[in-house]
Amino acid sequence: VTAEFSPTEKSRLRRKPQLAAYDEATIFAILDAGLICHVGYVVDGEPLVTPTAYWREGRRLYWHGAAAGRMIGSQAAGVPVCVTVSHVDGLVVARSGIAHTLHYRSVMAFGRTVAITDPDEKRRAMANFINRVFPGRWPELRPVNAAELAAITVIGMTIEQAAAKTKGGDIAVLPGDLDYPCWMGVLPISLTVGQARPDRRNTTPMPESVAAYQGVALEDVLARYANGYDPA
Amino acid sequence: VTAEFSPTEKSRLRRKPQLAAYDEATIFAILDAGLICHVGYVVDGEPLVTPTAYWREGRRLYWHGAAAGRMIGSQAAGVPVCVTVSHVDGLVVARSGIAHTLHYRSVMAFGRTVAITDPDEKRRAMANFINRVFPGRWPELRPVNAAELAAITVIGMTIEQAAAKTKGGDIAVLPGDLDYPCWMGVLPISLTVGQARPDRRNTTPMPESVAAYQGVALEDVLARYANGYDPA
Repeated sequence: VTAEFSPTEKSRLRRKPQLAAYDEATIFAILDAGLICHVGYVVDGEPLVTPTAYWREGRRLYWHGAAAGRMIGSQAAGVPVCVTVSHVDGLVVARSGIAHTLHYRSVMAFGRTVAITDPDEKRRAMANFINRVFPGRWPELRPVNAAELAAITVIGMTIEQAAAKTKGGDIAVLPGDLDYPCWMGVLPISLTVGQARPDRRNTTPMPESVAAYQGVALEDVLARYANGYDPA
Repeated sequence: VTAEFSPTEKSRLRRKPQLAAYDEATIFAILDAGLICHVGYVVDGEPLVTPTAYWREGRRLYWHGAAAGRMIGSQAAGVPVCVTVSHVDGLVVARSGIAHTLHYRSVMAFGRTVAITDPDEKRRAMANFINRVFPGRWPELRPVNAAELAAITVIGMTIEQAAAKTKGGDIAVLPGDLDYPCWMGVLPISLTVGQARPDRRNTTPMPESVAAYQGVALEDVLARYANGYDPA
C-alpha cells in the first residue's frame, strides 16, 4: 500500500474524479518526470506564476533563484504556493469540437515555502539538484564558492496536499460522432532531447550521465535517474 | 515599430533585464508557439495554478473548461490572473553548478478574466480554437449542439501587461571555470510529435492539417499555422 495524500477541499478534483489520484507513487512519478514546474504565489492579492526548475526529496520540493529576485523575495518569508507540473502526451483529434482534447499528466502540489539560507544546507541541496539531473556530476564540477552560494536562495516546500490528474486512453465518441465521416486519432507528443552541442573548449569527453539524454524522451532519462542510477 | 506593452511594477523584470522583452512581436511569437499555459488565480487568498489549453486573438487570450468546474467557477466572475507560457529549449551543462541552467522562452501575461457565455460567441471562439490548431477542421466536424455549448464556459482575458523572458546563447564561464577540466555543452530540447495513431473506425484519410504535425517540433507547425495557413 502506497502512502496517500488525503484530498481536501483545496486539492480534491471535483470534475471527472476518475482522472484523479492522490497516492504518492502516482504523484511522485509525475513530479520525477519533469524538469520545470510553475509556481503560483500571491503578491498584493494578485497571482503570479513563475516557471522554474525544481527537484524533489521525499515529500519536499525545492527550487532556487537569485536572492535579489522577485520570486525569492516574495517567497522567502514563507507563503502558500501551488506548484504545478504538467506533461502533454498527445493531441486528441476527434469527430466533434467538444471531443477534441489533450492527453496529459499533471500534479498540483500545495504547501508553504521555507527559505533555505544556511550555506551548508544550500550546498547539499544544490548538489542533490545537479546529481538528480546528471548523476555523479556534482563532484566533477568546479566547487561552488561562498559568494556564489550567497547570491542564490533555495526555497523548500513540503507537500501538504497534492492531486494528480491523468488523461489518456480512448478517444471520446459522443452521440452523433460514431458515424460522422471525419478522421480521428491521436498525435503523441513528448519532450525530446537532441544531439548534444559540445563546447569547443572541452578537453574531456562527454560523461555518460549527459550522453544518456541524447535522442531520447527527456522524462525517460529523468525517471531512470530518479529510480536509482548506477554509474558502474 | 511593433507595439509594446509598457512594463509596470508588476510586469517588469528586475533581475537580468537583458533577457526581457515587452514588444508584441516577441510576446505573441512565444504565445503562438504554445499549446498549454499555466493560469494562476487566487481563491480564498491562496494561489492555484491550472494547466490548460489556450488560444490567442490579438491581445486577447482564451481558454475554456467545464462550466461546473472549479477553475471556471473561480474565474467567471472576473478575477486577476497571471497566464504563463514556457518553452524549455535546452539543458545547459556547465563547468560549475551555479552556471548550469536552462535555455528557455517564457511569457507572463496579466489581465482580468471575463466569462463568455453567449452561445454564438462561444461557438465562434471554439471554432477559432480548433482552426488555430488544425486549420480548416471546424467545418469538417460534427456540429456542436446547444447542450454541449452550455456545458462549457469560455474565459477571455485581454492582456493588460506582459513580459517575455528569453535565455539562449553561450554557456556562462565563470571565474575558475575556464580551465577546469570538466565537459560542457548544451542538450537541445523540444516538444516533438510522433506518428499519428489513427482510430480503427476511420473511413476518411488523415487531413493535411493533422498530418503536418507528424515527426516535427510541435511549435514549428503551430507557428506556421499562426502565421497564416493556406490549405490550397
